[in-house]
Amino acid sequence: MVLEIIPVEIEKEIKPGDNVVGLMLLAKSKPQLKNGDILVFTQKIISKQEGQVVNLSEVTPTLLATGIASEYGKDPRVVQLILDESKRIIRMKSGVIISETKHGFVCANAGVDESNVQRGHVTLLPVNPELSAQKLRKEVKDKAGIEVAIIISDTFGRPFREGQTNVAIGLSGILPISDYVGTKDSFGRVLRVTAIAIVDEICSAAELVMNKSRNTPIAIVRNYNLNEEIGSIKDLIRSKSTDLFR
Amino acid sequence: MVLEIIPVEIEKEIKPGDNVVGLMLLAKSKPQLKNGDILVFTQKIISKQEGQVVNLSEVTPTLLATGIASEYGKDPRVVQLILDESKRIIRMKSGVIISETKHGFVCANAGVDESNVQRGHVTLLPVNPELSAQKLRKEVKDKAGIEVAIIISDTFGRPFREGQTNVAIGLSGILPISDYVGTKDSFGRVLRVTAIAIVDEICSAAELVMNKSRNTPIAIVRNYNLNEEIGSIKDLIRSKSTDLFR
Repeated sequence: MVLEIIPVEIEKEIKPGDNVVGLMLLAKSKPQLKNGDILVFTQKIISKQEGQVVNLSEVTPTLLATGIASEYGKDPRVVQLILDESKRIIRMKSGVIISETKHGFVCANAGVDESNVQRGHVTLLPVNPELSAQKLRKEVKDKAGIEVAIIISDTFGRPFREGQTNVAIGLSGILPISDYVGTKDSFGRVLRVTAIAIVDEICSAAELVMNKSRNTPIAIVRNYNLNEEIGSIKDLIRSKSTDLFR
Repeated sequence: MVLEIIPVEIEKEIKPGDNVVGLMLLAKSKPQLKNGDILVFTQKIISKQEGQVVNLSEVTPTLLATGIASEYGKDPRVVQLILDESKRIIRMKSGVIISETKHGFVCANAGVDESNVQRGHVTLLPVNPELSAQKLRKEVKDKAGIEVAIIISDTFGRPFREGQTNVAIGLSGILPISDYVGTKDSFGRVLRVTAIAIVDEICSAAELVMNKSRNTPIAIVRNYNLNEEIGSIKDLIRSKSTDLFR
């Protein structure tokens, strides 16, 4: 079966309280949704819908944030927001702040992002991206009568390799990890350790049809065989105690 | 444009000297190749074609390998091969060996893999996956007259997040990182840091139609707009000096 990754363009700049699902259902370029489709939404559009946009002129940096900012050549108000959004700092070096967000994600700048938002503003990650995904899924069901899975994606860097990839920060209606443990390989040997983070792979696939600058904040992933099981984004978060790099 | 990810089944168990491109071109399930298609091959099938398969009965472990193996509950001969394939060990804990391979990849077990290979044998990574990709590309051109890009993929774990994803270990005819630096976002602001590792995302997309146990070692990625530039897998390898986690 050929897997299809279908871009959905939304021309409108999303504002707090806008209805992204409604806009998506009206999008001209999009095919009819089908049961079993997976919809990938960028974090940015969901953060905007949910009002997770901060006017920097309303942020008063602490002395700590001001100090870090002066050392790193950053805006102290942005640093303040990064500190506010972080549970703990993991690495801070060469102008890069890697922290663990309140959700448990390890990423640069705690998801505080100055791109694709009006000047003088930044977006924060959704407060609870899992809940956001659940709401989107229910809304698609209510408005279009279609059973889909939802993934909210963001662009994260990673150790060891250059470049960033899109990964999942929230999901609903899909199992995040396809666990081959217990299944047999083509030699009849039981596979021991392969557990594929399929939702991250789906976000990466979706990114290939999105474009940072061109109003494609949604992709439909079609013909992926969803099984009955569902899971939580928490299944993707490696605990500090089992992480060899914290 | 809808991106298509098309699985290509190869039923035959690949042996050293087999011709993977020839088998692919004969595969029944596959559509006609087109100029601009991206072909993703799993490391396993390329390693087998290139004879990177080791009979463990021919490996004599050193005392170091035997010591590590006894501590970790591993086969000392497998540990020996991991040491042989590694430039340096990055982490060794809880039965997991993370090392930097001779190619510069940071991954578990230096790519030494016991799955989907006959019992008593393991596969190693291709000696030079970039060269492998170049050869595959030339062969497709020579045999089918089609200009494609080639990526060789492998399944790697990563820090911070559970589950593994497919990433590139060799490529030809494609730029590994799509660099948005210097382009403008939808507010006209110049994007500063977004550099997407598109070849890793393409490998992840391809994995979604492959299946560890079901003879789908190749995927065709169709309708991705390849630009004229090409690059090297080296562009994806973060140097130790710029890596915050080594």
